[in-house]
Amino acid sequence: MTIAQAAPHRAASPTPLADHASLIVHGRDRTGIVAAVGAVLAKHQANIVSLDQYSDNPHGGAFFQRTVFGRDNLKVALPQIEADLRAEMDKGFELDFTLRDLSIPKRVAIFASKAEHCLLDLLWRHRRGELPITVAMVISNHPDTAGEVRSFGIPFFHVPSAGADKSGAEAEHLRLLQGNVDFVVLARYMQILSGEFIGRLGVPIINIHHSFLPAFIGAGPYAKAKERGVKLIGATAHYVTEDLDEGPIIEQDVVRVSHRDTVADLQRRGADVERDVLSRAVRWHSEDRVIRHENHTIVFA
Amino acid sequence: MTIAQAAPHRAASPTPLADHASLIVHGRDRTGIVAAVGAVLAKHQANIVSLDQYSDNPHGGAFFQRTVFGRDNLKVALPQIEADLRAEMDKGFELDFTLRDLSIPKRVAIFASKAEHCLLDLLWRHRRGELPITVAMVISNHPDTAGEVRSFGIPFFHVPSAGADKSGAEAEHLRLLQGNVDFVVLARYMQILSGEFIGRLGVPIINIHHSFLPAFIGAGPYAKAKERGVKLIGATAHYVTEDLDEGPIIEQDVVRVSHRDTVADLQRRGADVERDVLSRAVRWHSEDRVIRHENHTIVFA
Amino acid sequence: MTIAQAAPHRAASPTPLADHASLIVHGRDRTGIVAAVGAVLAKHQANIVSLDQYSDNPHGGAFFQRTVFGRDNLKVALPQIEADLRAEMDKGFELDFTLRDLSIPKRVAIFASKAEHCLLDLLWRHRRGELPITVAMVISNHPDTAGEVRSFGIPFFHVPSAGADKSGAEAEHLRLLQGNVDFVVLARYMQILSGEFIGRLGVPIINIHHSFLPAFIGAGPYAKAKERGVKLIGATAHYVTEDLDEGPIIEQDVVRVSHRDTVADLQRRGADVERDVLSRAVRWHSEDRVIRHENHTIVFA
Amino acid sequence: MTIAQAAPHRAASPTPLADHASLIVHGRDRTGIVAAVGAVLAKHQANIVSLDQYSDNPHGGAFFQRTVFGRDNLKVALPQIEADLRAEMDKGFELDFTLRDLSIPKRVAIFASKAEHCLLDLLWRHRRGELPITVAMVISNHPDTAGEVRSFGIPFFHVPSAGADKSGAEAEHLRLLQGNVDFVVLARYMQILSGEFIGRLGVPIINIHHSFLPAFIGAGPYAKAKERGVKLIGATAHYVTEDLDEGPIIEQDVVRVSHRDTVADLQRRGADVERDVLSRAVRWHSEDRVIRHENHTIVFA
Repeated sequence: MTIAQAAPHRAASPTPLADHASLIVHGRDRTGIVAAVGAVLAKHQANIVSLDQYSDNPHGGAFFQRTVFGRDNLKVALPQIEADLRAEMDKGFELDFTLRDLSIPKRVAIFASKAEHCLLDLLWRHRRGELPITVAMVISNHPDTAGEVRSFGIPFFHVPSAGADKSGAEAEHLRLLQGNVDFVVLARYMQILSGEFIGRLGVPIINIHHSFLPAFIGAGPYAKAKERGVKLIGATAHYVTEDLDEGPIIEQDVVRVSHRDTVADLQRRGADVERDVLSRAVRWHSEDRVIRHENHTIVFA
Repeated sequence: MTIAQAAPHRAASPTPLADHASLIVHGRDRTGIVAAVGAVLAKHQANIVSLDQYSDNPHGGAFFQRTVFGRDNLKVALPQIEADLRAEMDKGFELDFTLRDLSIPKRVAIFASKAEHCLLDLLWRHRRGELPITVAMVISNHPDTAGEVRSFGIPFFHVPSAGADKSGAEAEHLRLLQGNVDFVVLARYMQILSGEFIGRLGVPIINIHHSFLPAFIGAGPYAKAKERGVKLIGATAHYVTEDLDEGPIIEQDVVRVSHRDTVADLQRRGADVERDVLSRAVRWHSEDRVIRHENHTIVFA
Repeated sequence: MTIAQAAPHRAASPTPLADHASLIVHGRDRTGIVAAVGAVLAKHQANIVSLDQYSDNPHGGAFFQRTVFGRDNLKVALPQIEADLRAEMDKGFELDFTLRDLSIPKRVAIFASKAEHCLLDLLWRHRRGELPITVAMVISNHPDTAGEVRSFGIPFFHVPSAGADKSGAEAEHLRLLQGNVDFVVLARYMQILSGEFIGRLGVPIINIHHSFLPAFIGAGPYAKAKERGVKLIGATAHYVTEDLDEGPIIEQDVVRVSHRDTVADLQRRGADVERDVLSRAVRWHSEDRVIRHENHTIVFA
Repeated sequence: MTIAQAAPHRAASPTPLADHASLIVHGRDRTGIVAAVGAVLAKHQANIVSLDQYSDNPHGGAFFQRTVFGRDNLKVALPQIEADLRAEMDKGFELDFTLRDLSIPKRVAIFASKAEHCLLDLLWRHRRGELPITVAMVISNHPDTAGEVRSFGIPFFHVPSAGADKSGAEAEHLRLLQGNVDFVVLARYMQILSGEFIGRLGVPIINIHHSFLPAFIGAGPYAKAKERGVKLIGATAHYVTEDLDEGPIIEQDVVRVSHRDTVADLQRRGADVERDVLSRAVRWHSEDRVIRHENHTIVFA
């Protein structure tokens, strides 16, 4: 018996939140935003399930609001809710908003290399129903994890990227991804993406860096951590920008280490933090809990 | 030079949040609450600075909302805001609300015994301006900390409570407290309060218990923790009810220990957790971040 | 391609520590133990790689020492080292000792039920070479994980245990286990083992309990945690004794939760803590880092 | 009543560990060190209370051992124990050792500026008997904390250090310190010490840096942390070297923050971590638990 056969009928499907939507409002703070949004939702009999609001400066700063609401037959009502919100926003608010039907999971592609711990952890959490995503595909520059990925019922594509010229690999990536995914996760994918690729892809990319950024930027952070003699090591999930390891941080965590830990021990212990941090970042992004603003994130976790 | 002289001109006063108010709405969930509250605030040109909302069950559960808002000349407008909120709530909502001017710090009495770490930490944080409270008095069943408390410019009252009959002490406590304080903090006060006292006092009482409740209820939790061989010890801040160590939990934290730690080590290390946990609970209570519901707390921290 | 084929050539074998041994000395404290043990090892040209020592009371308490040492051709020398240690101990020390060749991994059977997170985590870690163990078999009272377990190249045995009478299942367990394993891990195995079974099995059994013991003993700890309104939830790995949830604690950890977390959320978040705590306990036990003493453990981690 | 009067009879004296000594052995690893040291101690009827050993490389690396032992009339025996250890080490070991009578607390000078949280925390802990040190003096470039420090019965010296030329202040520091202290603690002392001063002082200096080093080296780390949008902030206790913020790290810790925290919030929350981390570093250093090796520390905590 193979896993490929066994997996499907055990797999929990990701929990789609039927008849619920998320609404992100983001822009210039002013009096009356909460009331205006609330009035539109109330008019449509939408029940607010959770609401988080934040202003970075009460005097003309930036405003952020995440609302989750539910109502019967949401799909039918959603276009009119959107139109009414648009009309309301046009009454002098300087705000953008995003409305999303939570019954439709976001589609993701996971990029991996040889290290499997982050990849397997995401696939396994997805199978358990912990992540409201559809894993559209896994792309790796190494073939090693093909069998395991496919045993979860997920397409695996091997795109080698040896050598200095990544343009062929990136073209292949774009062909696979464009139109098919809502975001990309780099699950310890050990290749640098070009600025051009990031721009043309046009969807958010989440990376897990194996250090507590901004400490130990670049390659080999565990060796650098050992060299510096730190007493904690960490991991950082962040959105990818053209500037390596400089994008907006979504989540971080650390674990205590000691002089007894070798670089290999740091890698082993850090791997646990990496998978935890990455899975939280993916879940929060999937649930529209993360708002990017300048080079920061507002996380309504 | 004595501390009693030196303290005043160094003391930061607790930061009163001028022209801001907190609004707690709590009751039966229904569509339209956020909109109704938002509309009243918008009508009064009140700018919402932060808003947290939670429903424990989207289908007719309990609703909790904490809003902080600001506007010029708040004190003048507050009575009318309250009247308008009352009128709105009377339109069929089953909700209570509490509106509080944040420029007026809550008044607290701190009860202590011999152990000084929680008491001193609260007084010191207060002096630094970290806690928006007025420390009206310290009451202790031991005289030991009198000098240190008074050096912070705070009245100290010694109320002995030896013997089985606490009624004399409790009568004295009530005489000191009634009308003078908005809540009481038991900062490692090693005496049990009678149900009658709690009832007659009529304001919230926050206790710090030196274990991770519900583990090690009752006296001597560190000795019990050593006996059981736990690998973490903790502390719990909770509201006091008639049932010892059973009241609603506000905050908890833990610290790692090992077989090498003696009971005295556990006490020393636990003391650090106690003071941190208690100070967080006091701050959150002072800022109206804690809502009691049945035997639980909703904490919008 | 199936995982069962792919796994072997990717699988890192558990790192056997060639030419190294662990020595645990445990008994009544006295002057001269470290010197006596050190002299025997020095005589045999054994280099001490790490040494941890602990006495629970300097005046006639219990003594615990873990030493890891290496030398060339250890296997040849080990019998004489053991004989010399025995002779030394017989000179009036009241001590037991255990000497173990670290190139031979301990053999373990993992018991599971339907929940797979602890089981899979151990198998993944084992495949990555993180755990110096040989997984001899997995035994489950449910057939669900058979395919996945076998894809790791590990035997899976389904032993149903429905009904009140567990004697048939336990007899089957003993037939599978006796002589084949050095310890047993209950990886969220949801059945109670009889005292008779524990006694006849005669090897250590490690269990993971889904609460921060001694809080929430028994069934349904997450529901109890929600009911009590705790702000942290935890997991506890302990040796199994006849008294349910009362055996010596090996490791514990916690994670912060809030009023927003449902019982299902607590289960999901607790699962992460469970697998981390269990894997640490298994690794420490495998490396002879845990010494049982009365109802406690000394952990030289 | 002043604190200065009240303090003495409440003050627990730092617990001197009568008739116990610590022995640090540090040098080139070789077979037989533990046995040789153990034999000397056993010859003198010294009972080993705790022993930690570490080698950074089993093949000719560096060796570190901390031993605490007790015997009656230790003071009488100590010179002969030292002579015997010296003789033993001279038999071909490449090792240094330090033997210290634990009944004599180390003498420390604490340097502070305006921020008082680390200073006060050390003084409180010292008064409670948590730190086996003698606080010889407090030196500050601001007079603000004079009254409070003296209320603990500790000398306070105000040494201004305004302006670019610190040589006058440093000369004054040396005059106060030389011969009087065994180490110095910079408890948020906001001045840079010159390499010449560090060299002439000749005793270890412990600093608390208000970031998780090596992140946010230099001034204003909380502002930098806010700017970078990190989700955890930390503090680092390290030995001071000529290279600012680059000395060997003794201890680090972090606390979780969010987008809601202003720079002032980060300072407030970081202050709690700073005082905890610094107090652990001071305690460990006082108990000879920290061994410097190259730019690292071995901490037997």
